[in-house]
Amino acid sequence: MANRLIRFLPILSWLKDYRGDTFVSDALAAVIVTLMLVPQALAYALLAGLPPEVGLYASMIPLVAYAMFGTSATLAVGPVAVASLMTASALGGIADSGTPEYVGAALVLATLSGLVLFAMGLLRLGFLANFLSHPVISGFITASGILIAGSQLGHILGIQGGGHNLLEMIHRLWNQLGELNPVTLQIGVGALLFLYICRKFLKRALIAAGLPERLADLSTKAAPVTAVIVTTALAWYFNLGAAGVNLVGEVPSGLPDISLPSMDPDIWATLAPAAILISLVGFVESVSVAQTLAAKRRQRIEPDSELIALGLANMASGVSGGSPVSGGFSRSVVNFEAGAQTPIAGILTAVGIAVATLTLTGLLAFLPKATLAATIIIAVSTLIDLPAIGRTLAYSKADGAAMLATIILPLVHGVEAGITVGVALSIGLHLYRTSRPHSAIVGRIPGTEHFRNVLRHKVETDENTVIVRVDESLYFANARYLEDTVMALVSDHPKMKNLVLACQATNDIDASALESLEAINRRLDDAGIRLHLAEVKGPVMDRLRRTPFCEELTGQIFLSTYDAWKALAKKPTTLCTPD
Amino acid sequence: MANRLIRFLPILSWLKDYRGDTFVSDALAAVIVTLMLVPQALAYALLAGLPPEVGLYASMIPLVAYAMFGTSATLAVGPVAVASLMTASALGGIADSGTPEYVGAALVLATLSGLVLFAMGLLRLGFLANFLSHPVISGFITASGILIAGSQLGHILGIQGGGHNLLEMIHRLWNQLGELNPVTLQIGVGALLFLYICRKFLKRALIAAGLPERLADLSTKAAPVTAVIVTTALAWYFNLGAAGVNLVGEVPSGLPDISLPSMDPDIWATLAPAAILISLVGFVESVSVAQTLAAKRRQRIEPDSELIALGLANMASGVSGGSPVSGGFSRSVVNFEAGAQTPIAGILTAVGIAVATLTLTGLLAFLPKATLAATIIIAVSTLIDLPAIGRTLAYSKADGAAMLATIILPLVHGVEAGITVGVALSIGLHLYRTSRPHSAIVGRIPGTEHFRNVLRHKVETDENTVIVRVDESLYFANARYLEDTVMALVSDHPKMKNLVLACQATNDIDASALESLEAINRRLDDAGIRLHLAEVKGPVMDRLRRTPFCEELTGQIFLSTYDAWKALAKKPTTLCTPD
Repeated sequence: MANRLIRFLPILSWLKDYRGDTFVSDALAAVIVTLMLVPQALAYALLAGLPPEVGLYASMIPLVAYAMFGTSATLAVGPVAVASLMTASALGGIADSGTPEYVGAALVLATLSGLVLFAMGLLRLGFLANFLSHPVISGFITASGILIAGSQLGHILGIQGGGHNLLEMIHRLWNQLGELNPVTLQIGVGALLFLYICRKFLKRALIAAGLPERLADLSTKAAPVTAVIVTTALAWYFNLGAAGVNLVGEVPSGLPDISLPSMDPDIWATLAPAAILISLVGFVESVSVAQTLAAKRRQRIEPDSELIALGLANMASGVSGGSPVSGGFSRSVVNFEAGAQTPIAGILTAVGIAVATLTLTGLLAFLPKATLAATIIIAVSTLIDLPAIGRTLAYSKADGAAMLATIILPLVHGVEAGITVGVALSIGLHLYRTSRPHSAIVGRIPGTEHFRNVLRHKVETDENTVIVRVDESLYFANARYLEDTVMALVSDHPKMKNLVLACQATNDIDASALESLEAINRRLDDAGIRLHLAEVKGPVMDRLRRTPFCEELTGQIFLSTYDAWKALAKKPTTLCTPD
Repeated sequence: MANRLIRFLPILSWLKDYRGDTFVSDALAAVIVTLMLVPQALAYALLAGLPPEVGLYASMIPLVAYAMFGTSATLAVGPVAVASLMTASALGGIADSGTPEYVGAALVLATLSGLVLFAMGLLRLGFLANFLSHPVISGFITASGILIAGSQLGHILGIQGGGHNLLEMIHRLWNQLGELNPVTLQIGVGALLFLYICRKFLKRALIAAGLPERLADLSTKAAPVTAVIVTTALAWYFNLGAAGVNLVGEVPSGLPDISLPSMDPDIWATLAPAAILISLVGFVESVSVAQTLAAKRRQRIEPDSELIALGLANMASGVSGGSPVSGGFSRSVVNFEAGAQTPIAGILTAVGIAVATLTLTGLLAFLPKATLAATIIIAVSTLIDLPAIGRTLAYSKADGAAMLATIILPLVHGVEAGITVGVALSIGLHLYRTSRPHSAIVGRIPGTEHFRNVLRHKVETDENTVIVRVDESLYFANARYLEDTVMALVSDHPKMKNLVLACQATNDIDASALESLEAINRRLDDAGIRLHLAEVKGPVMDRLRRTPFCEELTGQIFLSTYDAWKALAKKPTTLCTPD
């Protein structure tokens, strides 16, 4: 019982040993993550088309929920770039950005994602995330990065921008170029340059100046906060709002209200597909980050518990005014490197965000949106991995094709189509690969009990008895191929009286393959040929014995191929030479 | 060149050897199949909601097209029950049954199915039919049989009936029960009883009376023609039309016009999903029938050529006033048993149908629809295979679940949803099965070079070096499971310094699995553990060598597990005993 409770509430396993020095580590990490998270929360709300406070709300109670149920000590949960893009894409069809209906739909989306994740955790359906193959995820994230950067260019230029795919974005930017705001452009480009230089050179400069590497790294990560402070101060001092610079504007001070999201079944049904995709992508990314960090300390991540924890975090976000959340990569790395020891760091981060929300909102009103856009662009630039296309194509054309589809479709059509087609392609190409398994007619290596491919080795064969080895489990995708292969053999070997299937590589025979074997058995019988099996694996044999197939089989089931050869081969005289 | 032409036009390979006695055999078979096909063509047109002549038109030119391009000598093509049900379901959403728009949409559906099949043949996409696993096909055909029988009850009772699923059908029948026509009921039940008795007892009775078995069988198959002739005569003599019996009515005499179908892109787009499903189901059934019959004479069926032949047959149907066609099971068996030797039998059958259309349409006007309904019900009763559910569930729960879904969904919801969900379930359950491959920590059997599962054998292990064997190809569905498994091992073996993956059962490593191996390698490195591979198969090794993985690998690649053991195991002292 206690064990099951700990499994469900991992917090119980570490809270009893919690000590003062651990608290100090956690608190320090929390301060640094809070500094990093405030501008990110505002930026990703902007990206999702939501008011800035939604980003802050999504960085409070969800963090507490994850801390209680998650198995990673260092995963930092909150709004992330890709989920924000997917949120904007999903909500775009429902209401105009920024309206109360739009915000209400974001709450529904968060709750729904939470329910999907939670249900997957309870039902142990985490394997569904496997449908997202690495090339598909990687391609999708590259495409998202490009789309996100494109969507922020309008803010940098001080024009409206918009559009659901890259072509639309470019088209609108081009049309509106005449309306660009020079002051906004200066701030945007200035922030971009500053952040770029910090990322490229600051760390090395600080190390050269004598700072320890970890401190230099963390200072570099604080660059966005500096940009926010400086541009906010400029906007306030020079009253840039009056000069046409878009500012974040008034952010309501205070903590979020707790309330149930809309229960309109139409909205729920409309958002369900997007919620499933956001959940799966978020889960895959979170577990990957969590496992990478856990490995460094030989800690363990339980994917099923992660589903439950991320599910509860999203539900918490949905009832406390937030948007979908998941584990953020750079944020978690900072949390880890700043020394977070336990999920208490996450709870303290939530407290930090709450304090910021209560005290800083007056100042944030002067924050230029161009600054947030610059932080987003710099952050997502690391997501874009175009060389991966070449690498993947070189390794496997099928995987490369799936990746290309998942990159190109979102750019020209939209986010959800891309990932759906990518998943379908991955699965289809996998089934294709296994649908034509390697098979070989084998013969006996003279004087031995070994049987090898007649095309590659000098072996004895027998015109009465043909032995075929199939190098794959037999299941629906290759069952009919087996029928085709065997029936082609029959017409190619007019003197054949016995066909032996050597099954040493067959780990499974599903119901489709069983029916194919039954059909093959009947058809061979009609053609005057007996069907035999050899080297059937134990578990496969156990299942076959429960069916009438073993009785219907016209031939025998031999333990080894050699047994079959001894019993069946009448004139093993032919000696094949490989071509 | 000649070979390629024969491959595309199989008729060239046998026409040059065609002799007079073969023609006599083919002509005899054609007469018998024509007798069987006339009532079937009318009945399946009724089932599809189309005028009777559409069924006749679908049994002329398409047969000629198949005869020229098909590889089966005996497959009898034409309208079939399941495709007619799917046609009715697809067209129901477009126009009212029997209207010119409805007939026009049927032409589009046939053309579109033909294009789908033809394209699949050209692109060698026949493997797509593998997505329809045996349990799904079998379940779908059982559900179709039930739906078809249900849809014909109204004709037997002389009421309107209708409905898209079993619940609707029962509901409507119940409400309209008061309007039933007693004369129609007498004809319908009479025909049903006659056909049932013929099927059950006639063959045996004829054999007992001294007829040869084959002749008895063929006479039994002629029962529907007898029912048609007798009830038509009754309806004409007693003027049953005036008594409220629904008759087939005037059938236009003459051959079909050749004309292109509607090119309205909306209709094409709406019908595309149904066309794909009809094509796939028709193809799977046709090839299965063709292979069963071909095996009896050791002939060969080329699935890709069948796609092209069936595609051209359907396109021919679409431009000559017909509906979707495929190979019919009972009709092909009759063709085979009546002695058809070459596809000329099919061409002669088409001539027979043309003659019937030119001469018999005046008489067919008096044919009661109840008779056709009775022939349909008796014909589809053989499609319904409920015991298969139990058999499949007993063999494999996953396959059984997919089958149940494919049976229940069409009954309560509609035809297309059922097959789509069935396919998704088959694929999902297959990926689930392979997503958690069997893996084992292995140790050395003392004094040998053999390594076996530590849980099953007394073996030597080493606390520094853990050897894991994975019994499956590594691909996206199990890549993350591998990560989970390895990282769990790391936290369970605090003293581990080397991890060896023994890959003798790994036939493939796709791009996802490669990235997982790279991640595992990095994470183990972070944890101070070196990753080694052993027994990597040749083709897998060839691909790995083209990637940076081999250089990044912290450990070595050993030829055999024993090589790894010799190099790495420092204190192989522990002797495990199985639990």
